[in-house]
Amino acid sequence: MNIDLNADLGESFGPWTMGDDAAMLAIVTTANVACGFHAGDPSIMRATAELAKQKGVAIGAHPGFQDLAGFGRRRILGISLRELENMIAYQIGALQAVAALAGHPVTHVKTHGALGNMVAEDDGMALAVGRAIKAADPSLLYMVMPGMATERAAETLGLRAIREVYADRTYDDTFNLTDRSKPGAVIHDTQAAIDHVLRIVRDQAITSLNGKTLKVAIDSVCVHGDNPGSVALARTLRGELEKAGFKVTPYRP
Amino acid sequence: MNIDLNADLGESFGPWTMGDDAAMLAIVTTANVACGFHAGDPSIMRATAELAKQKGVAIGAHPGFQDLAGFGRRRILGISLRELENMIAYQIGALQAVAALAGHPVTHVKTHGALGNMVAEDDGMALAVGRAIKAADPSLLYMVMPGMATERAAETLGLRAIREVYADRTYDDTFNLTDRSKPGAVIHDTQAAIDHVLRIVRDQAITSLNGKTLKVAIDSVCVHGDNPGSVALARTLRGELEKAGFKVTPYRP
Amino acid sequence: MNIDLNADLGESFGPWTMGDDAAMLAIVTTANVACGFHAGDPSIMRATAELAKQKGVAIGAHPGFQDLAGFGRRRILGISLRELENMIAYQIGALQAVAALAGHPVTHVKTHGALGNMVAEDDGMALAVGRAIKAADPSLLYMVMPGMATERAAETLGLRAIREVYADRTYDDTFNLTDRSKPGAVIHDTQAAIDHVLRIVRDQAITSLNGKTLKVAIDSVCVHGDNPGSVALARTLRGELEKAGFKVTPYRP
Amino acid sequence: MNIDLNADLGESFGPWTMGDDAAMLAIVTTANVACGFHAGDPSIMRATAELAKQKGVAIGAHPGFQDLAGFGRRRILGISLRELENMIAYQIGALQAVAALAGHPVTHVKTHGALGNMVAEDDGMALAVGRAIKAADPSLLYMVMPGMATERAAETLGLRAIREVYADRTYDDTFNLTDRSKPGAVIHDTQAAIDHVLRIVRDQAITSLNGKTLKVAIDSVCVHGDNPGSVALARTLRGELEKAGFKVTPYRP
Repeated sequence: MNIDLNADLGESFGPWTMGDDAAMLAIVTTANVACGFHAGDPSIMRATAELAKQKGVAIGAHPGFQDLAGFGRRRILGISLRELENMIAYQIGALQAVAALAGHPVTHVKTHGALGNMVAEDDGMALAVGRAIKAADPSLLYMVMPGMATERAAETLGLRAIREVYADRTYDDTFNLTDRSKPGAVIHDTQAAIDHVLRIVRDQAITSLNGKTLKVAIDSVCVHGDNPGSVALARTLRGELEKAGFKVTPYRP
Repeated sequence: MNIDLNADLGESFGPWTMGDDAAMLAIVTTANVACGFHAGDPSIMRATAELAKQKGVAIGAHPGFQDLAGFGRRRILGISLRELENMIAYQIGALQAVAALAGHPVTHVKTHGALGNMVAEDDGMALAVGRAIKAADPSLLYMVMPGMATERAAETLGLRAIREVYADRTYDDTFNLTDRSKPGAVIHDTQAAIDHVLRIVRDQAITSLNGKTLKVAIDSVCVHGDNPGSVALARTLRGELEKAGFKVTPYRP
Repeated sequence: MNIDLNADLGESFGPWTMGDDAAMLAIVTTANVACGFHAGDPSIMRATAELAKQKGVAIGAHPGFQDLAGFGRRRILGISLRELENMIAYQIGALQAVAALAGHPVTHVKTHGALGNMVAEDDGMALAVGRAIKAADPSLLYMVMPGMATERAAETLGLRAIREVYADRTYDDTFNLTDRSKPGAVIHDTQAAIDHVLRIVRDQAITSLNGKTLKVAIDSVCVHGDNPGSVALARTLRGELEKAGFKVTPYRP
Repeated sequence: MNIDLNADLGESFGPWTMGDDAAMLAIVTTANVACGFHAGDPSIMRATAELAKQKGVAIGAHPGFQDLAGFGRRRILGISLRELENMIAYQIGALQAVAALAGHPVTHVKTHGALGNMVAEDDGMALAVGRAIKAADPSLLYMVMPGMATERAAETLGLRAIREVYADRTYDDTFNLTDRSKPGAVIHDTQAAIDHVLRIVRDQAITSLNGKTLKVAIDSVCVHGDNPGSVALARTLRGELEKAGFKVTPYRP
């Protein structure tokens, strides 16, 4: 029983620091590394890849919308599927070459923020992301949300997937995250988040906020990396997963 | 007797167009493609790679300073060699993945504008660029100025080089371009530029502005792609090179 | 019978040129000047203000989304009303100070592209823009679409308005532009566009695409400035307006 | 005996925070507010202006090079004096309008980082900055280094100046800061910095690192705002200045 723990890291930019990457890289087994569009810059990408290598943490590209001021959290409309392919490939390739300087290979791709939400909900966009991944390197893993467009796109394109679940978010009946505007969307209590994760990875099923059972296959659990509480939650969660008999290790298909 | 003709292309950005890439890609045999830092964006990079493939034109990454407003023509000081490695690798990788969407491989790297000038003059910087190239793909060709730091760096690192000469620029006694502030730096007359090129590629030697003979090995001639006269000069030059018995073709080491 | 002719100008950026501003500034009487977020940079803003002053053309700030690559034509969601106030004020003030170097005052504000569309349709956003205008200078004119949120916001806030109509666009029954995805949205024929404008400014009423009569008060006609046909249409339209007895002159409330 | 204490604030950007502005604004009497080119964004500028108003702290524009990734600390060459005027005016105007939303007037201008160093050393650049200030508002104070190009430019242009000294930096015999590459350039010890400041403001003279006495008139002392030790040093310095009989208050000419 293996399980991967992933977090969004390398989200500093220029002179500005976000989160405690060194602490997180001692806990998680997979890092989604910002590629300069919504956060990160070539030097932060390099440093993140080097530190991840040291700690044995797998790295992936974490492409987002080109919107530093909005941290990629604002939906940008009217980008064509072809433009989407191009901007995803650009960011993946950028990280691949920078990570090569660190001697650490890029092994997966996960879209960030508002782009990630849109891609999970839209088959056309999810396929465009998949085509960009395939062009960059067909052996890259596509980190997907089970039951959503990204999982379908990986399958359609013959890309191997990492299926992830969010530690501190609940789900609606469509396998999507409960909209943040709705009560119960976010699990604020640490113990509740841990119980939520343990149930899902043991049962390979999510119980939606409405009580519906959603069968899923989960390879990785996503924890946040950008606020002070993140490190503590991640550490506790890792400990509990290990106590429950899971081996916390980078996902290998 | 083969000779390559190269030009900086893909220098449009977002809604703005620069030069007549379609016309130039019917004349030159190698295109240096802007990578989004001083010009170009993912969609322009893709379109340039696709058109180059159609026309049988080799493409390379043309990384520059991150300065769109200044088009990479302003020297930026205080970037460490490690930062330089990172920003060069970033841009190369970005083009590699975007070009993969076009099915056209990136085969060389040439630095742009003010960065290009600084790199040609500084062994430390030229080596940093070379290390970035090597990390991205050690089979990439490093487009260099013979007699300058870039040629030395390629040799030191075991990278294969494309040695280029500028069609419309004169040289000083150090193998560097005559400083633009000095009279005679730029060759404005078309026939004079053509004679200048033919002499250099025939003799494999440059006569400096002072009359000194500089032995060089030239693989490629650089023509401009960004102004209305560029296309006419490039076309005439290609014709004259062919008349003189050269086969104009992408450089293959 | 006075009428103003306005166009979006100063839409070049760095080394890239858009449109023929010199030609347009000899025809139109009001220029909406890009402020650096979707197009324009400080030096282009200065040059545009200087040329407008020379030609007796009134200038206004033309703020847009911060999206150079998308030219401000992509809707960006999730910007709060307070953030909107801030980004509009920023762009207005920037132009005011740069135009002061040219000795030419900024006299109005018109939002650009996707932001312009969103603001016209949303009372909250239109009021936020109005508050930013008022903070920058309460004597600035707010260029609005009659019958839409912008006109209501100007009235609510006590700002004086320039009410404009588009020369080459048809209208739906809500006073909004016909959605571009619908047939008949754009008037491609020059004579048809001129007839459309003459009818509207004579009758002070728009006939919607459905045939409904919409009473409006029109102070200015917007022509495009960014493509080769723009100059010819603007010139012909100006001639026809003058023949019809209108004095083409910057709007003064 | 009045003395002003100034610090660079508003240096956060988008989702990233720098320094503890709330703490600093309770200590200093003048804030130099980043204007979006090297740090700051419209919303951070607004929030900084609002907090400064609340605390009775004067604000000024702190324009820098357009280089977020480099935080404005890298020299960019080849910007013409006219371009410099434009980019300074742009940033001043942007802050003026955003600060107007906060109801707090901009009262001075100080250039940032590498630009600040270059401007202090170059009469042409210092005059260009002065012309931009004058265009934006001739009553703005020009924060200058006594004995340097900025002080001369203010005098030449008839702009009123705030003459500042750095709390933790030593000076060479030309009234310039000791180059950071030289030993003794930075005063690391808190007590030494305080003694250094007290001597200068009492004597209205700086003793250079070489022991030369440089007569100056000092209106303001600059303290850093961007690192954890900043707040403590600023607080201690303020206390010591008050103990020494100075009234710490925004400079009023």
